[in-house]
Amino acid sequence: MMIVMEQTATEEQTQAVLKKLTEHGFDIHKSTGATKTVLGVVGDTAAVDVRDYEMLPGVSEVIRVSDPFKLVGRVFKSDDTILNIKGVKIGGKELVMMSGPCSVESEELIREAARFVKKSGAKILRGGAYKPRSSPYTFQGLGLDGYKFLRRAADENDLLVISEVMDREQIPEAVKYVDIIQVGARNMQNYTLLRELGNIPKPILLKRGMSATIKELLMSAEYIMAGGNHDVMLCERGIRTFETYTRNTMDISAIPILKKLSHLPVVADPSHGAGLRDLVIPMARAAVAAGADALLVEAHQDPDNALSDGAQSLYPEQLDELMSQLKIIAPAVGRAL
Amino acid sequence: MMIVMEQTATEEQTQAVLKKLTEHGFDIHKSTGATKTVLGVVGDTAAVDVRDYEMLPGVSEVIRVSDPFKLVGRVFKSDDTILNIKGVKIGGKELVMMSGPCSVESEELIREAARFVKKSGAKILRGGAYKPRSSPYTFQGLGLDGYKFLRRAADENDLLVISEVMDREQIPEAVKYVDIIQVGARNMQNYTLLRELGNIPKPILLKRGMSATIKELLMSAEYIMAGGNHDVMLCERGIRTFETYTRNTMDISAIPILKKLSHLPVVADPSHGAGLRDLVIPMARAAVAAGADALLVEAHQDPDNALSDGAQSLYPEQLDELMSQLKIIAPAVGRAL
Amino acid sequence: MMIVMEQTATEEQTQAVLKKLTEHGFDIHKSTGATKTVLGVVGDTAAVDVRDYEMLPGVSEVIRVSDPFKLVGRVFKSDDTILNIKGVKIGGKELVMMSGPCSVESEELIREAARFVKKSGAKILRGGAYKPRSSPYTFQGLGLDGYKFLRRAADENDLLVISEVMDREQIPEAVKYVDIIQVGARNMQNYTLLRELGNIPKPILLKRGMSATIKELLMSAEYIMAGGNHDVMLCERGIRTFETYTRNTMDISAIPILKKLSHLPVVADPSHGAGLRDLVIPMARAAVAAGADALLVEAHQDPDNALSDGAQSLYPEQLDELMSQLKIIAPAVGRAL
Amino acid sequence: MMIVMEQTATEEQTQAVLKKLTEHGFDIHKSTGATKTVLGVVGDTAAVDVRDYEMLPGVSEVIRVSDPFKLVGRVFKSDDTILNIKGVKIGGKELVMMSGPCSVESEELIREAARFVKKSGAKILRGGAYKPRSSPYTFQGLGLDGYKFLRRAADENDLLVISEVMDREQIPEAVKYVDIIQVGARNMQNYTLLRELGNIPKPILLKRGMSATIKELLMSAEYIMAGGNHDVMLCERGIRTFETYTRNTMDISAIPILKKLSHLPVVADPSHGAGLRDLVIPMARAAVAAGADALLVEAHQDPDNALSDGAQSLYPEQLDELMSQLKIIAPAVGRAL
Repeated sequence: MMIVMEQTATEEQTQAVLKKLTEHGFDIHKSTGATKTVLGVVGDTAAVDVRDYEMLPGVSEVIRVSDPFKLVGRVFKSDDTILNIKGVKIGGKELVMMSGPCSVESEELIREAARFVKKSGAKILRGGAYKPRSSPYTFQGLGLDGYKFLRRAADENDLLVISEVMDREQIPEAVKYVDIIQVGARNMQNYTLLRELGNIPKPILLKRGMSATIKELLMSAEYIMAGGNHDVMLCERGIRTFETYTRNTMDISAIPILKKLSHLPVVADPSHGAGLRDLVIPMARAAVAAGADALLVEAHQDPDNALSDGAQSLYPEQLDELMSQLKIIAPAVGRAL
Repeated sequence: MMIVMEQTATEEQTQAVLKKLTEHGFDIHKSTGATKTVLGVVGDTAAVDVRDYEMLPGVSEVIRVSDPFKLVGRVFKSDDTILNIKGVKIGGKELVMMSGPCSVESEELIREAARFVKKSGAKILRGGAYKPRSSPYTFQGLGLDGYKFLRRAADENDLLVISEVMDREQIPEAVKYVDIIQVGARNMQNYTLLRELGNIPKPILLKRGMSATIKELLMSAEYIMAGGNHDVMLCERGIRTFETYTRNTMDISAIPILKKLSHLPVVADPSHGAGLRDLVIPMARAAVAAGADALLVEAHQDPDNALSDGAQSLYPEQLDELMSQLKIIAPAVGRAL
Repeated sequence: MMIVMEQTATEEQTQAVLKKLTEHGFDIHKSTGATKTVLGVVGDTAAVDVRDYEMLPGVSEVIRVSDPFKLVGRVFKSDDTILNIKGVKIGGKELVMMSGPCSVESEELIREAARFVKKSGAKILRGGAYKPRSSPYTFQGLGLDGYKFLRRAADENDLLVISEVMDREQIPEAVKYVDIIQVGARNMQNYTLLRELGNIPKPILLKRGMSATIKELLMSAEYIMAGGNHDVMLCERGIRTFETYTRNTMDISAIPILKKLSHLPVVADPSHGAGLRDLVIPMARAAVAAGADALLVEAHQDPDNALSDGAQSLYPEQLDELMSQLKIIAPAVGRAL
Repeated sequence: MMIVMEQTATEEQTQAVLKKLTEHGFDIHKSTGATKTVLGVVGDTAAVDVRDYEMLPGVSEVIRVSDPFKLVGRVFKSDDTILNIKGVKIGGKELVMMSGPCSVESEELIREAARFVKKSGAKILRGGAYKPRSSPYTFQGLGLDGYKFLRRAADENDLLVISEVMDREQIPEAVKYVDIIQVGARNMQNYTLLRELGNIPKPILLKRGMSATIKELLMSAEYIMAGGNHDVMLCERGIRTFETYTRNTMDISAIPILKKLSHLPVVADPSHGAGLRDLVIPMARAAVAAGADALLVEAHQDPDNALSDGAQSLYPEQLDELMSQLKIIAPAVGRAL
């Protein structure tokens, strides 16, 4: 941490800052330049609120030199983390597709979905059992039955299962039925939930919040890893901007940035990122071209009558078409599908 | 709801849209203009995902005519809601101040805080018992003890208590000890929590999420009200923008807009909205000048040594100074303090 | 245009709106539903400020049904526009690369740049003669000499030239020396400049402003086309968001959206969109995978000593590497390079 | 400037950075901590592109310690600048109102406007002669006649005149007829225009761009001041955010921040900041409560028939009402009206 004093700071002001730093157990390296004095602070400053020093008289700026995260970073682990989930590897040479409907609407529907998902070449079946809906007057999901239907449909087709938990009370059920637990964008900073997920032996897919910076996403992953669960995937799914044509603006640049800063696998969700079926395919291609390790794509046998998110769900044929395009693109980034 | 067909839409495409609408039980009013056909849809469209129609071939745009919320709106209730909480009225002629430290750090501290808060003229004591912190390595609050200490300190000084719940498991405790339950910005769309709060007999202060639109804030209030609890206050606390000088950009215009769209009381939180002590006072004045019904302001007897958010906490003298400035401003908006 | 009256609007209020509409020469189609009255307005509403009606008593909302642009849209021209600039076709089957340094620093440098740009397979040489710099204390470009050096270097290597104009006084010079005139992001809404460019016989590359919506970019293209110059290319180069890791967030989804709404060719500028060399290559791949017709990529023989934007300029070898990756990706979107 | 090396940086990498710094004439202060090496750079780094160093191998981060602006800052001049324009003082004890219609629509109209503006107690008459309009199909202003009509109307009523220039060719005319030259939000980074305005003896009101940070606004003011013209006012007029209820989000916090960072007077434009008449009055009150030195408010004798921006123009009675409210608020911030 660096504390830059104002050009007009008095010696007393500088001493007061030094005193506070010393009281908190930091070593200080003082450097007096032509116009300004800068204090280099040595020690574990991760828990410091920089504003506590910014507010002191005579202080111009306080700058964090080190990132507040550790376990998620490349310094802690320089090689890519490759998760091996019942034989499906995420983060390595192979590009992995996860697909299925937004919600598990019925056992019938999810079994049919599992069949076309499997046929497309995807390895993992998605489907929501508990749905976060912004209106209290809409379909809220099948709950526990949703997990059970998903599990059976996946097992019949030799697929893995990914599904969301919205609350820590749902975790024990999820652990029993799903292979990857998804944390939704609205829960990215639900710290009671994150802490609980740090204690369980299941891979987590953590979605970036709509207004979360890349570093905040990494901090949330740190929360989970700090609890002991190191099997975390990071997922870009669109951020909120001023543009109104799309619900969110999918931040494709987050993919190479996350790969640079962290060793964790990076997944892209073009369905929520784009929000409209026509855009899902080009955005899925773009995500792979930018280096994503896996994709999470909504597909439905009858999107026009889906109970939720039909507008952003692909038809089965479109999923097949996307897979064939991705087969062409993957070698450009050293991958296979 | 209005469905605008493309200029180039075929008759078959229009018929397909009409068929889908009819199947869903809507009445339709078709209007063919010089260049475009527009379908007026009559019926309860609140639960419709507009994208389901936008995706149909030949459709140019789907426009919601009515707002998706009901109970929070001025159409449902045209007069201002005035909450009467143990004699303190929020939403009426009187401007109400809520103040206290960010966290309840100890019983000692909160008792002292209650004394200076009372002396300033504030009516409600704030303090966090459970703290949502973005780093897993920092102070996380005293928990249940925090609620108890707050209650006792408030009772000694004839103040009400406001404090946050982060999880639905904390609700029964909160109901026992606090007078107003606060929902933090990160939980504004935690629907399992909102639903639960709809069933309890306590006023709720609902903070706007960092990237939530004004209408989304109203939808979250609707969630609580739909459960039966109509005692909701809306709170502006800053939104995320591209500006980096402040943590958030406090959207002062949300105050008159919320007052126009809704009958619920509107509270402003300049401490989180501004994030730096120097800015809290001017932003608090601005919020009152713009029409806020109440303020939520962090203050601490020793901000330099606060365990959290010291940088945005006022000194007791600053709180007094702010109160005296607000006394001047309040009559300009027809209020008293 | 649709005018939705409030549920509580009186008959007098509705009559007043009808009167104003009639006075302005519009035909009206009134539709009274169960709860609300909606007025359909027929006529040329492109020049109407919707707020003029929103402000009238009793009006709930005013909705534009038609887009304010005409010439840029697919309704006006459904087929893709393919520009043929001295034999280089942009907007068709071939993916076109434009490359070169940020600034023309000297005749020597640009001649060398032209050689490696040509060798890479690019068809168009870029270079800035007039530089918009945010600090008054930095290099501002060579001016007219810059155009001349560019022209000569391009001619020696059988390349076309693209360069920016910052002011309408620079247009006559630019017309003389360059093949494509670039309008920078900061000038996207410089209407005196746009109007002037509508009167000249040169293709224009129009960059999206940092905070411009997709529809605003199209409106600015409309400005140029309304003057008679229909040879316009639209360029995505990153928008301003809350994310601070990158200077801008490149909005890859704008590429398929622009292709859908408009017949004009779409160019991507990953150098400004990403802002850091490491990110330029993945973002360039993503742009092509998403359907861009051409790329504008900064490259420099010695980026570490470039006078401007060295940090986002590729080394010549990196440009070659990018070209070979794009050759793999292009067929996935039905293109060749 | 501080250069932070990565934890894993090699000695060779550090030496390469040192070499580049030395070649550019900087003095370096090297500090080796427990885990990281930090290089303090002494010298004039204002013109350095920090990315040039960020890109070097082994570099983790480059941090600017000093602001890139000088003349606008409090270090350069600690006392508030008070402009005295023909006896009207802006930046001192008195709160100054500037008001009038969006456009000068006719001589008749502006003379009438000048009369009610004068009557309200305002000191400065506003009105646009050249209008930047986003559609090529709408009213574009009266041009030079607009300036002349404004001048005469102001002189008749003993008012000053403020009006916009959109292009440097309009400057000589503006100098002749107006007292304060306004630079619009879309021209905040039109550097050829700013440079020209640095050479003329007229006060400038510089509006913040829709997506400009506070520091970028200060850099643009620096451009003008660097040319020799130190009579600059800074104007907040709303920024672009994700919120769609208003056109822009007026950043009231920019007012106290600008007052803190700069000695220049700060003006607020609630008409563009709010965009709807109902919101203009509360936002004007908020701006004054937050510390603005002056207001720029659109008013029109017949807003319903205004040629532009009628929806955000106050009726004359509303302007009077606003003035009487501001008289109550002003003393709270140590001002008079």
